[in-house]
Amino acid sequence: MARHDGRLPGEIRPVSIVTDFIRYPEGSVLISCGNTKVICNATVEEGVPSFLKGKGRGWVTAEYSMLPRATASRSPRDISKLKLNGRSAEIQRLIGRALRSVVDLDGLGERTITVDCDVIQADGGTRCASITGAFCALVLALGRLRQQGALADLPLYSYVAAISVGVIEEAPVCDLDYQEDSGAQVDFNFIMDDEGNLIELQGTGEGRPFSKRELDDMYFLAQNGIRQLIGVQRSAIGHLFR
Amino acid sequence: MARHDGRLPGEIRPVSIVTDFIRYPEGSVLISCGNTKVICNATVEEGVPSFLKGKGRGWVTAEYSMLPRATASRSPRDISKLKLNGRSAEIQRLIGRALRSVVDLDGLGERTITVDCDVIQADGGTRCASITGAFCALVLALGRLRQQGALADLPLYSYVAAISVGVIEEAPVCDLDYQEDSGAQVDFNFIMDDEGNLIELQGTGEGRPFSKRELDDMYFLAQNGIRQLIGVQRSAIGHLFR
Amino acid sequence: MARHDGRLPGEIRPVSIVTDFIRYPEGSVLISCGNTKVICNATVEEGVPSFLKGKGRGWVTAEYSMLPRATASRSPRDISKLKLNGRSAEIQRLIGRALRSVVDLDGLGERTITVDCDVIQADGGTRCASITGAFCALVLALGRLRQQGALADLPLYSYVAAISVGVIEEAPVCDLDYQEDSGAQVDFNFIMDDEGNLIELQGTGEGRPFSKRELDDMYFLAQNGIRQLIGVQRSAIGHLFR
Amino acid sequence: MARHDGRLPGEIRPVSIVTDFIRYPEGSVLISCGNTKVICNATVEEGVPSFLKGKGRGWVTAEYSMLPRATASRSPRDISKLKLNGRSAEIQRLIGRALRSVVDLDGLGERTITVDCDVIQADGGTRCASITGAFCALVLALGRLRQQGALADLPLYSYVAAISVGVIEEAPVCDLDYQEDSGAQVDFNFIMDDEGNLIELQGTGEGRPFSKRELDDMYFLAQNGIRQLIGVQRSAIGHLFR
Amino acid sequence: MARHDGRLPGEIRPVSIVTDFIRYPEGSVLISCGNTKVICNATVEEGVPSFLKGKGRGWVTAEYSMLPRATASRSPRDISKLKLNGRSAEIQRLIGRALRSVVDLDGLGERTITVDCDVIQADGGTRCASITGAFCALVLALGRLRQQGALADLPLYSYVAAISVGVIEEAPVCDLDYQEDSGAQVDFNFIMDDEGNLIELQGTGEGRPFSKRELDDMYFLAQNGIRQLIGVQRSAIGHLFR
Amino acid sequence: MARHDGRLPGEIRPVSIVTDFIRYPEGSVLISCGNTKVICNATVEEGVPSFLKGKGRGWVTAEYSMLPRATASRSPRDISKLKLNGRSAEIQRLIGRALRSVVDLDGLGERTITVDCDVIQADGGTRCASITGAFCALVLALGRLRQQGALADLPLYSYVAAISVGVIEEAPVCDLDYQEDSGAQVDFNFIMDDEGNLIELQGTGEGRPFSKRELDDMYFLAQNGIRQLIGVQRSAIGHLFR
Repeated sequence: MARHDGRLPGEIRPVSIVTDFIRYPEGSVLISCGNTKVICNATVEEGVPSFLKGKGRGWVTAEYSMLPRATASRSPRDISKLKLNGRSAEIQRLIGRALRSVVDLDGLGERTITVDCDVIQADGGTRCASITGAFCALVLALGRLRQQGALADLPLYSYVAAISVGVIEEAPVCDLDYQEDSGAQVDFNFIMDDEGNLIELQGTGEGRPFSKRELDDMYFLAQNGIRQLIGVQRSAIGHLFR
Repeated sequence: MARHDGRLPGEIRPVSIVTDFIRYPEGSVLISCGNTKVICNATVEEGVPSFLKGKGRGWVTAEYSMLPRATASRSPRDISKLKLNGRSAEIQRLIGRALRSVVDLDGLGERTITVDCDVIQADGGTRCASITGAFCALVLALGRLRQQGALADLPLYSYVAAISVGVIEEAPVCDLDYQEDSGAQVDFNFIMDDEGNLIELQGTGEGRPFSKRELDDMYFLAQNGIRQLIGVQRSAIGHLFR
Repeated sequence: MARHDGRLPGEIRPVSIVTDFIRYPEGSVLISCGNTKVICNATVEEGVPSFLKGKGRGWVTAEYSMLPRATASRSPRDISKLKLNGRSAEIQRLIGRALRSVVDLDGLGERTITVDCDVIQADGGTRCASITGAFCALVLALGRLRQQGALADLPLYSYVAAISVGVIEEAPVCDLDYQEDSGAQVDFNFIMDDEGNLIELQGTGEGRPFSKRELDDMYFLAQNGIRQLIGVQRSAIGHLFR
Repeated sequence: MARHDGRLPGEIRPVSIVTDFIRYPEGSVLISCGNTKVICNATVEEGVPSFLKGKGRGWVTAEYSMLPRATASRSPRDISKLKLNGRSAEIQRLIGRALRSVVDLDGLGERTITVDCDVIQADGGTRCASITGAFCALVLALGRLRQQGALADLPLYSYVAAISVGVIEEAPVCDLDYQEDSGAQVDFNFIMDDEGNLIELQGTGEGRPFSKRELDDMYFLAQNGIRQLIGVQRSAIGHLFR
Repeated sequence: MARHDGRLPGEIRPVSIVTDFIRYPEGSVLISCGNTKVICNATVEEGVPSFLKGKGRGWVTAEYSMLPRATASRSPRDISKLKLNGRSAEIQRLIGRALRSVVDLDGLGERTITVDCDVIQADGGTRCASITGAFCALVLALGRLRQQGALADLPLYSYVAAISVGVIEEAPVCDLDYQEDSGAQVDFNFIMDDEGNLIELQGTGEGRPFSKRELDDMYFLAQNGIRQLIGVQRSAIGHLFR
Repeated sequence: MARHDGRLPGEIRPVSIVTDFIRYPEGSVLISCGNTKVICNATVEEGVPSFLKGKGRGWVTAEYSMLPRATASRSPRDISKLKLNGRSAEIQRLIGRALRSVVDLDGLGERTITVDCDVIQADGGTRCASITGAFCALVLALGRLRQQGALADLPLYSYVAAISVGVIEEAPVCDLDYQEDSGAQVDFNFIMDDEGNLIELQGTGEGRPFSKRELDDMYFLAQNGIRQLIGVQRSAIGHLFR
């Protein structure tokens, strides 16, 4: 199967991570994965949500939203319907879990870091780009805390990045764009650390069920893609962490 | 590792499916998986959501909610916060996808089937029990349509059931109850059909990342658990489908 | 006038009260009045709403909801409309008042008891069944507080139960089911204690005004029905109160 | 028992009904019952709610609200809490039922009349004053339809008015003001027509249960008070109806 | 250009300000500007919003709403749409700013004064009438605080009033009613103090842009109209302030 | 008075307008005014809001929002409070009016153009930057309609741009940044066309009232600033309009 943009099955789209994109947040990046662009801003606030108070532990959470016209047709804002979009609710929970999996919350202390992922242009893979970018914004914010003397070390266990893998016309390919995603038979998101371990896995047979064999094939494409993404993360924030 | 209730690693909790539990829905079951109890009611309505109108295809969707006191402490109702709980939003999207994956929507015709999954008692695995029960409620509703002459055959590709698998104290076990789930290192939900194919997969390393090897081990436990669940489904609704 | 199910004018439907229906609440019953079935769960929480703080008095409140498919056709959930159903709002206020009328709030101390009444199947008389069942759930919760040593005695003045009475084809009958209720000319709810005193009264001429004479007739039917209901309550929770 | 303002037990407060109070509504009155003042505006709109469409019948409904400072302390507006006040929800349903009970909806034709009852000053009995005033606004609006030739006759069965009756220090009194209402042992609202028939009845034992004998006593006070209120209504809108 | 009601270009509509219109608020007026009628109620509460706590300063804010039938056709209440009307949001922010501009918030102390402006009849210029009336309600409330000994002096810098000015058929006129406002080419609101200084200015070219010269002309009409309005304010509350 | 960034009183901040910033909207610009950055995306949709249906006229509207971390501290998203921010509501109404003032809605035909203004970085003057940028996005969208043959000419009367002017330490200055805005005594926004005519004017005395003389001074600064802004607009979209 030839991909419509000529990529090889295991080839990811061009990725760039611009640090300090917005002036005011403690950590800010613009991540571009092909035509998908997400602003990731990390905010550090003293204190933690009430369910954590007095335990000496910190909290990391995320919010995800798309500009109304990030896509080919305009979607109304959540506030005009008075409802948080179900898809957004699901994605921001995923981003939060992914980030918390690599943070030593005890080491963070009673602070909350909120990473806002705002998709300004969407061409598939926005949740993966958000996770990959949000991790960098988080590292920048932690780096600033260390620089201010509030932390001795960055309370992080590892890098984390995310990639989509799918089956298109019976063939597994990685980092699907919107056109590919729309026609995929199987659609997976892999979240992994820098040693090839899995952090979270989500996959659906869109048009048909899939076999264990296909899952295995997708895992190997994902592993390879994640390695490349973490390479780009390291170029952007490697001076701060490892 | 010994499980606190004496079960073997691959042993599921006692499951029962009571059909026609509520009188009025087109399909209704009470599913119990250990102490987890969910009422699944399927409603058939003529017509489809606006994005599907005039295509001759049907729609299947789900809603998920817990009674305030399904759990050890009381949770406020969504309406008192004016917000659909994020976890519920995520789960009901999952149930809907799982059901649609086995339904021939063209064969259903321009009808909408809504399956309401209301958890009356929660002891872990509520989303899996909801999927397993919702499938039965759906079959009952489709069976009634066939009986009324509205459908010639049940527009279904296969059975679908769901099971949780986790890693506890480094050992994989299946069908976790609440106590096990709270302490799990890795937490997975497998949704599969009656031929051992995967329909959806969701898993998170709660306390640590996990390896591909662990994923493989969990898959085999899940495959076995699903087989047992589908056996119980067949006892309940096998006279209607296959 | 012959009733469609053959009951005599003063005959109530078969009533059953299953105690400890759900495992986790401090008090839980499933009440069935004919085909109407309501789960009543009582939750005890320390503290009181802000308007009562520091007065040494407790509070008792109720919430009422129906599963979407408790009835012949499906009703959307409140959260999907972002509005508490007006009828539910009215009923839960009524249940709360009825319960508070028999509780010595000073004797309860600074605790709040919330009784959730969730109708799983509705065949008329759901508000009355909710009150009758909620009282039992409340007694179970108070009984547990006494058993734990938190209360010396149950802070209760009397039993309370509720029954509907109506005029159908010019004849008064009690405990109307949905079919009777739909065609009633006058529709009343009597809430009474175990000495035949009135606690609350609500009645409407649905199709025509009604006379004082009719009210008197309905009162006598209600008095008799309440006596029977309190008999069933006593079988269920009489070992705890009186 | 002497009433704090010197009234006899059966004596109502001074009542006035100013017609055409606001210029734009099809019917508008300001009703004052002592210090309670309510603006009642009736709006006529062509068409009916969807559940009535195509049946040739009309609809009458009501909305009830209080200005934030109608009372001694300020209450936040509903919109600032995004919730319709539970008490308001209950009252507006009551007003709507009371008005519909005297209207021949078939005679009205496919029109909707909405009566807005806005309490500008509240000294007890606001729901009763709203019903008594709303009826007059409704008659004015119907009178205008007749004058325009849209109706041949006013589609009304009778007058309707409402009065509160309570038990204070063991004695029944009628038309309670706020101070009396706060201390009442029993609190009733009677809605009646011009022949002394009952249309709706609501009563609660606030501090203690009450006997059938007390209900009978209250009924006779109510009957007398309603007669006086309907007298005032007739002075205001008697030229239009009967 | 002749005005439809015969007024001269600089002539305002008849204005009246009834003080102590509602019994319970600390300050209450009914202001009528022609057929526009607004109830302005000022409430004094101890304490300030959280962003001001502990600074020893007070706060003045306003809320604005229209009765559903203040206008020729009925508008649904905000609560039925769960959204504060955008126009109301804008107007209440304007009223709040206008009042705060003349209040010495340090002199007020840690108190909040909320002025509710409820339009009961709307014939154009409701935001201006609200400001002019709200100032009087505010003075009455401050006067009561002084009378109670809570304040030594009224913490006010000056009077404030507001007037609309517009361009109709190329001619500037002041105090537009609804009919004039609907056809205006330019529509301005001037908020000024008693020395002819400007406090806030808002103007829009409705049908066409406007020149600096037109702005100057409108300013002089406004200055004159404000002088008249402040005259009426002084008649109503001049015994309390200046 | 020396400005903190060394600008002259009438000197605007560096402005840039990047066209086609986002790929999918019919018109898209990123406008930067100093450190204030706003993405303006124009969407063309067939059809008009219901109040305009069947009149052959089009509609232009705007929405305005800020990313949570556009500012020095994080603001919660509107959806988390279920309320559209009052300030945003006011601003988006202003942008909509400004755009409509220069569009020939009859010439547009039954189409709706929605311009989303999303502030990604805020350093004062965001509403003015939004208007100036939104006009360019609108022209790009209209240009595309002309290119597609849907319009013969751009239905525009003139350019429109907006600038803030204020009084700081008694001296008028234009295009205030956040630091200046916070300390301004008077704060104005001028919206003007390319011939120096006024389209909308909004101004407040923040700390004190202001004189007509000051208004005149501010007008001349505004006129000059607008001329410069329209110059930048012409560089960006002058090939499409005039």
